[in-house]
Amino acid sequence: MKKLAIVLAAGQGKRMKSKLYKVMHQICGKPMIEHVVDVTEAIDCERTVVVVGHGAEAIQAHLGNRVDYAMQAEQLGTGHAVLQAKQQLGAEEGITILLYGDTPLVRASTIETMIVTHQAEGAAATLLTVAFDDPTGYGRIIRGEDGTVEKIVEHKDCSEQEATVKEINTGTYIFDNQKLFAALAQVTNDNAQGEYYITDVISIMKQAGETVLAYRTADQAEAAGVNDRVALAEAEQLMRQRINQQHLLEGVTIIDPANTYIEADVTIGADTIVHPGSYLRKGTVIGSDCIIGPQTDITASIIGDQVHIQYSSVEESKVDAACSIGPYARLRPGTVLGARCKVGNFVELKNAVVATDSKISHLSYVGDAEVGKEVNIGCGAITVNYDGFNKQLTKIADHAFIGSNVNLIAPVHVGEAAYVVAGSTITHDVPAGDLAIAREKQVNKEGYADKIKARAKAKKERIQSSSDQ
Amino acid sequence: MKKLAIVLAAGQGKRMKSKLYKVMHQICGKPMIEHVVDVTEAIDCERTVVVVGHGAEAIQAHLGNRVDYAMQAEQLGTGHAVLQAKQQLGAEEGITILLYGDTPLVRASTIETMIVTHQAEGAAATLLTVAFDDPTGYGRIIRGEDGTVEKIVEHKDCSEQEATVKEINTGTYIFDNQKLFAALAQVTNDNAQGEYYITDVISIMKQAGETVLAYRTADQAEAAGVNDRVALAEAEQLMRQRINQQHLLEGVTIIDPANTYIEADVTIGADTIVHPGSYLRKGTVIGSDCIIGPQTDITASIIGDQVHIQYSSVEESKVDAACSIGPYARLRPGTVLGARCKVGNFVELKNAVVATDSKISHLSYVGDAEVGKEVNIGCGAITVNYDGFNKQLTKIADHAFIGSNVNLIAPVHVGEAAYVVAGSTITHDVPAGDLAIAREKQVNKEGYADKIKARAKAKKERIQSSSDQ
Amino acid sequence: MKKLAIVLAAGQGKRMKSKLYKVMHQICGKPMIEHVVDVTEAIDCERTVVVVGHGAEAIQAHLGNRVDYAMQAEQLGTGHAVLQAKQQLGAEEGITILLYGDTPLVRASTIETMIVTHQAEGAAATLLTVAFDDPTGYGRIIRGEDGTVEKIVEHKDCSEQEATVKEINTGTYIFDNQKLFAALAQVTNDNAQGEYYITDVISIMKQAGETVLAYRTADQAEAAGVNDRVALAEAEQLMRQRINQQHLLEGVTIIDPANTYIEADVTIGADTIVHPGSYLRKGTVIGSDCIIGPQTDITASIIGDQVHIQYSSVEESKVDAACSIGPYARLRPGTVLGARCKVGNFVELKNAVVATDSKISHLSYVGDAEVGKEVNIGCGAITVNYDGFNKQLTKIADHAFIGSNVNLIAPVHVGEAAYVVAGSTITHDVPAGDLAIAREKQVNKEGYADKIKARAKAKKERIQSSSDQ
Repeated sequence: MKKLAIVLAAGQGKRMKSKLYKVMHQICGKPMIEHVVDVTEAIDCERTVVVVGHGAEAIQAHLGNRVDYAMQAEQLGTGHAVLQAKQQLGAEEGITILLYGDTPLVRASTIETMIVTHQAEGAAATLLTVAFDDPTGYGRIIRGEDGTVEKIVEHKDCSEQEATVKEINTGTYIFDNQKLFAALAQVTNDNAQGEYYITDVISIMKQAGETVLAYRTADQAEAAGVNDRVALAEAEQLMRQRINQQHLLEGVTIIDPANTYIEADVTIGADTIVHPGSYLRKGTVIGSDCIIGPQTDITASIIGDQVHIQYSSVEESKVDAACSIGPYARLRPGTVLGARCKVGNFVELKNAVVATDSKISHLSYVGDAEVGKEVNIGCGAITVNYDGFNKQLTKIADHAFIGSNVNLIAPVHVGEAAYVVAGSTITHDVPAGDLAIAREKQVNKEGYADKIKARAKAKKERIQSSSDQ
Repeated sequence: MKKLAIVLAAGQGKRMKSKLYKVMHQICGKPMIEHVVDVTEAIDCERTVVVVGHGAEAIQAHLGNRVDYAMQAEQLGTGHAVLQAKQQLGAEEGITILLYGDTPLVRASTIETMIVTHQAEGAAATLLTVAFDDPTGYGRIIRGEDGTVEKIVEHKDCSEQEATVKEINTGTYIFDNQKLFAALAQVTNDNAQGEYYITDVISIMKQAGETVLAYRTADQAEAAGVNDRVALAEAEQLMRQRINQQHLLEGVTIIDPANTYIEADVTIGADTIVHPGSYLRKGTVIGSDCIIGPQTDITASIIGDQVHIQYSSVEESKVDAACSIGPYARLRPGTVLGARCKVGNFVELKNAVVATDSKISHLSYVGDAEVGKEVNIGCGAITVNYDGFNKQLTKIADHAFIGSNVNLIAPVHVGEAAYVVAGSTITHDVPAGDLAIAREKQVNKEGYADKIKARAKAKKERIQSSSDQ
Repeated sequence: MKKLAIVLAAGQGKRMKSKLYKVMHQICGKPMIEHVVDVTEAIDCERTVVVVGHGAEAIQAHLGNRVDYAMQAEQLGTGHAVLQAKQQLGAEEGITILLYGDTPLVRASTIETMIVTHQAEGAAATLLTVAFDDPTGYGRIIRGEDGTVEKIVEHKDCSEQEATVKEINTGTYIFDNQKLFAALAQVTNDNAQGEYYITDVISIMKQAGETVLAYRTADQAEAAGVNDRVALAEAEQLMRQRINQQHLLEGVTIIDPANTYIEADVTIGADTIVHPGSYLRKGTVIGSDCIIGPQTDITASIIGDQVHIQYSSVEESKVDAACSIGPYARLRPGTVLGARCKVGNFVELKNAVVATDSKISHLSYVGDAEVGKEVNIGCGAITVNYDGFNKQLTKIADHAFIGSNVNLIAPVHVGEAAYVVAGSTITHDVPAGDLAIAREKQVNKEGYADKIKARAKAKKERIQSSSDQ
């Protein structure tokens, strides 16, 4: 049985008050529409048509040819929107899943369960429903004695008894594709709003004697449409809970799931502990037995086992096992750390490949560099990689020792086991085993501290007396 | 119709366990009493009298002459407290709003609605009420068939039927001012506690045939009095939600409103995204299309459009459009950044005016400085602005390039397009176009690294062997 | 009356999916089992026997001889588990409290209340119960007319009426010790699972005509068993709330208790304000009138009154009154700050004793150092304490002034009121009052900036043109 999907995404979303196309607003790091398209892919839809409106270039730029697009130039109702996919899907045999680009929390597993029932019962349509304590405003699901759907009654048309029904129509459906487009052809806009409603398809099918089922999900989030940023924030929270719950069940400790931000495509090993205020983004992979956070932000990086990162920012980097990073360290793109490296506070790495067991403990910048193993880079040491035009390479070989506040003016090479003394600015290569020094000798000027202080103090008094005048 | 207000703020608040005067405890960056006074100003009260007790100097120091003050030396009940305002307000014609300094979540819009009804119905008093699922302990509102208030019955005096009433008296009222003071004159302290109750005014008015109305708010927060720090934290949370909700509805994306701290007087442009752990304080103005946070703390600053600030602290600064700041940057008071500047990690700015397109990318301190456009300040460069007595100015002209780990000893002027090489300490002005250098030449001592390491290692062994003995 | 305790901690906890022994998972910085043992100590149990299973070495390593241990080699039910303590406790007279290592939120005060009732009524057993809105799956407490327990009925055995009972058995009991072991001897494993159930003890006691009481706690958390990491995170949250509530009631302002992480053994003085994202750990003591946070992490430290610490990490340090620390400062173990010191942004201290009124304002590392009073350590100044083998001491006497980007090569001593000028690397002691300088004179090379830029630019063009080919 061929699976097809139609995703309605033409709504303008005026209440978002945004220049951004509505369904491109993100939930947990990914546009809403992409979460929905992920669902259609997870259930192996052969074709997905996204029905878009004016300004949809942003969607197409983002999703590319993962889906097909149909343009709904005018907004004439949900039925009209679905009809825009007829040219592409009208000839297909199979089942069609109707989803919404602004309902990002629908689950693939729910759709799969619906499909099984839909096919087992030979239904023409299967509705996704949910029960609300207060169903005011929603279309109620009226079921017959056999549990199938008799009708959907809009809130305003409800009898007193129908109004007590708590099960409502979410708007997500599975249809027999041929029967969908056949019924759609009969839908009119003969109503107060002059719109074509997809719900009319259900009554048309019922009149034709077809079976219409309803599948009630226990997870109200699946019905959560996002129409303003309050709803966007709520959807984000629900998605966050869902992602975190999954990691918890798989053996990750998350100290405070309400305050931990993990995107959907992140992997975390068992017995890793994630402390609050941490952000794991863009396919980051974290090993086992790590301690991540507090307040650590990792994007598109691969972190080995037993790594400890606290209060740091890591982007497009690779960190091998048993490294210790932070607090207040920043790994920028292109950082690669070998096992057991230590990167301490106020250290920035960028495009730097560091071998095993090296230490960059404090107040350093190592950029555009290759650093060997068991190297010690002293406090305040800097690779001077930029001359205003070019970014140039610094190489530091195994076992080298770079002193505090040293400048290594790239391109430069410090040889194996070489030693650069503190305070030196290194402009030429240092051969292996050599000691490099570039600093003036110390002179102590006797009693001169008082003089310099007296001078500074006098200056202060001069300034004050002149400002007093 | 003249509007007057009385704010009761004499309570000691013993359960706060604080040296601070109770209503001076803050909610979202502002004393509770100020939130209430903001309401009286928002609804254009001509006079507001705050009734204070011993130790109220802190209120007066904070609010100054925004309000008048009446002293309630003894705490003899709410009726007695209101009476302290008689000397100031007794002769006025108009309506009087009675508010509480420790009920900071009452809304101006609610009071305005109450006033409209109050005046339309010619009421003597209008009560603000709220419905509690569990009204135990509160005075119940007993309404007549016409919906007006018949009486307020204290919890302990309730009949079985009255006890089922969920609508309770919040204690916030609107009164006809003349009728208020006339009724107050009849209130006695003939009760178990020996106190004068403002609620007695209502029964006195009813006996006089006056109309008493009740306005029920749906927002229970408006009734939330703060008597301990648990309640203070709850009020803070409710206020935070209210503020964040408003920004969301106006087109700001807040990833996690529960973890975003925005004070009431902050402005944020549309399509700005605020990441978690961010704090926007003291009238800060944020432009449109910015990305703020995570974990960014901005106080009393003006931020242009399209600015990106992450993991940083910004205070009393002005940042022009399209700047990028952080992570781990600190802008102290007096920082002014032109458009498209970049301030990177571990950079501190203070009292520094920087023109457009300049970069201070890492590990720098620029204080008491004027920096031109398209300047590059290298990693670890420092303006040495303090001699122990004076803070002195550094000027860096357009297109200058300051190398890594350079010290600029203020007062000093680096001319246009001048170049200061890494590792230099600059004590004199650098003319435009000149290159300044102040460093010793590098010497490589062959094989000396081993010697110095051997010496250090020997020392270590000496220490160890002596400590082993 | 002698008090004894048995803590069941042999469960494997497969759903934790962890290498770590189940009850060793932490809640608010302390293993679950330790929270429970803390309760037995708080109520003065003379002996506590922890029943452990395979792999319990981690418990013994952590708790040592605070408790006794009994091994339950096979998991044959709760009754069997308790029986493992018979050898150690069977001969004792007194009352035995039965607790669970994975139910960390039980309160000492609850157990104490239970004991009072238990003894007053001469009960053989007293059950801790709780009411659940949905008691599905739990054993219901069926009370007689006198309020004592008639029986516990497992969910599956409930009559229709019994199923409506919301009071359930938490599994925590107080027993008369002799009666417990006497009844246990009669418990069989004649049931579907083939296990020995402690609940059977209750029916055996009832048959023997003993009094069995139930004490219902209002705090459902006391019944919260932790079987997976979702429950672990929930228990952490509940414990966090409980700890924070206590501080709030004692006069600490916590701006957002949901986002503030305080371990159980932390002390905070009145009128201290704790901002969000802060972590107080391992017995840290905070004085009064402090401002802590946002995002400050303090471990095992003692902080005086009126200290302000923001966005910083403090570990095993002592900070005297009125110091100001951060943002982005790090105090590592062994830091001791005298009163009124200022430690600013991007400063790291380690094993450093600093006297009063000294300033280390920016971008510094001071490690293995003794610093006097009223010392000013300039921006970027570094104590070079490590030669690759040895950590050596720097001493800076009172009133000394250390210039920016200075290196102090330890071991070295800067005398009283000495002055080290910016950019110097100091290798020898500086006598009191002397000025030390170690830097090259500045040379301005006229027009040379253009040359160096032209050279760099040409290089860039060369690279580009070669990569274009």
